[in-house]
Amino acid sequence: MLQRDHDHRPQPKSRTAFRYFTSFDTRWRDNDRYGHLNNAIYYELFDSAINKLLIDHGILDFEAGDHVFLVAASGCHYFSELSYPDQLEIGIAISRLGNSAVTYDLGLFKKSADHTAATGFFVHVHVTRDSYRPAPIPTRDRDVFKPFVIVD
Amino acid sequence: MLQRDHDHRPQPKSRTAFRYFTSFDTRWRDNDRYGHLNNAIYYELFDSAINKLLIDHGILDFEAGDHVFLVAASGCHYFSELSYPDQLEIGIAISRLGNSAVTYDLGLFKKSADHTAATGFFVHVHVTRDSYRPAPIPTRDRDVFKPFVIVD
Amino acid sequence: MLQRDHDHRPQPKSRTAFRYFTSFDTRWRDNDRYGHLNNAIYYELFDSAINKLLIDHGILDFEAGDHVFLVAASGCHYFSELSYPDQLEIGIAISRLGNSAVTYDLGLFKKSADHTAATGFFVHVHVTRDSYRPAPIPTRDRDVFKPFVIVD
Amino acid sequence: MLQRDHDHRPQPKSRTAFRYFTSFDTRWRDNDRYGHLNNAIYYELFDSAINKLLIDHGILDFEAGDHVFLVAASGCHYFSELSYPDQLEIGIAISRLGNSAVTYDLGLFKKSADHTAATGFFVHVHVTRDSYRPAPIPTRDRDVFKPFVIVD
Repeated sequence: MLQRDHDHRPQPKSRTAFRYFTSFDTRWRDNDRYGHLNNAIYYELFDSAINKLLIDHGILDFEAGDHVFLVAASGCHYFSELSYPDQLEIGIAISRLGNSAVTYDLGLFKKSADHTAATGFFVHVHVTRDSYRPAPIPTRDRDVFKPFVIVD
Repeated sequence: MLQRDHDHRPQPKSRTAFRYFTSFDTRWRDNDRYGHLNNAIYYELFDSAINKLLIDHGILDFEAGDHVFLVAASGCHYFSELSYPDQLEIGIAISRLGNSAVTYDLGLFKKSADHTAATGFFVHVHVTRDSYRPAPIPTRDRDVFKPFVIVD
Repeated sequence: MLQRDHDHRPQPKSRTAFRYFTSFDTRWRDNDRYGHLNNAIYYELFDSAINKLLIDHGILDFEAGDHVFLVAASGCHYFSELSYPDQLEIGIAISRLGNSAVTYDLGLFKKSADHTAATGFFVHVHVTRDSYRPAPIPTRDRDVFKPFVIVD
Repeated sequence: MLQRDHDHRPQPKSRTAFRYFTSFDTRWRDNDRYGHLNNAIYYELFDSAINKLLIDHGILDFEAGDHVFLVAASGCHYFSELSYPDQLEIGIAISRLGNSAVTYDLGLFKKSADHTAATGFFVHVHVTRDSYRPAPIPTRDRDVFKPFVIVD
């Protein structure tokens, strides 16, 4: 469950908190009325970064696979504003590798910045494609995930 | 800080948990590769619902106002899938009305459903428009917010 | 082929130019840096309106159907600005019903307005789902389309 | 005015048709139900590419400028499907440099491809920011545009 602890404000993270990085560019339409990236865009980018990790490592076959990863929860803390045409980087680490669920820690960096402009997380549940029932993550996939796991 | 308590899974909420409702339709593009609303769309809709509450109650003047509300944190739990062309409703309550911050509890319902398909929250910080420094929420706005406040 | 005739500027159309209407709401994120609906949103809405016509009339089965309609061309003329939280309506007529292609004339109205804020068109080609080869539109579907056909 | 000439089907263009190139990546959410880039995304990318050309050449100051470019018309022909995580390139040329309007020819290429997967155009009108009245393009900006002009 998401709990908000109002006495402990989150802080930006450094690059050492992450195990995988991928780059993203921005689009004119990402800027909203106030001239900055709309808050929902952060999730579009987190989502794309995780799927890229899965594709690059041969885990996600979204055409033919009979299992998919479903987003069960997500969250984000915003520290500083970003704007098109900024170039961005997303860092990923796995903070929990459960039986059928994976929790990703995510950091959004302005290109070459030392600290995150935002941090977030996604919880993915591994499910059967037809009935969306949770299923154990196969050993092969667990082995792929292990190098990305950090100890909190 | 967002904390994930893996032993207490969140549950869908009923309509009585919310104090304000607004409707939204869906778009073909909202459905992603798997045929369901992409997880980032939930945030687009939450954002639009909160801004609608602010506009309807004369709080947000995004053309001329010298203060704006900035999203400091957001989060979502997904319970069941939604798809274009579903009609949706969003419920809003204020779970915390601080000095310069407002925490919104959010529920996304399939039209006429009793329980949420997803629940979320947004933390808005009231800031000066030019420097983004936190500023106390004016008494007039606090009075407008009060009927939406719930006790957790 | 799209040809631009610089001597004949297009004009807004009235409601009588269309045979089917559907409503859409807008989202905070639709407004771009200038505070108006970004030009790409018009296409999201046109797309959603056409798919709604197809779904409402039993033509599009995007789960199980072995044929789909592919967008071969689209275009839009913008006459006046729209903004979240405007309520919108889209009018549709079919200006050409070919052997395997349908050309839709589209009008975007601010709710209750007499004239279009934008007009556009989409060319759909009826193709097999696996190889994307053009295929004749079945008689049953042609019969459904006929009431929407206008003579230019 | 957009005219559709059904007897002359447009053909993909080669790189020599364009005078400026910029790269874009794709996002998971760009793929729609059918697993390919939704047609509206093409316009998001065209829009971002043109604005990048304007920003890179010091023409667009969307914070402080008293003139902006407004999209008056746009259009696209789709030749072949694209999908996340494809890397893309957009080519731009100016096919008409009028007194207060600029017409951009646009080509969307899969990275390193010789021919466009889609071609499009945007007509920009140079207007005053407050009243949206057309205004002549300043000499300085015309000089910047000239190297991108092609003769049809």
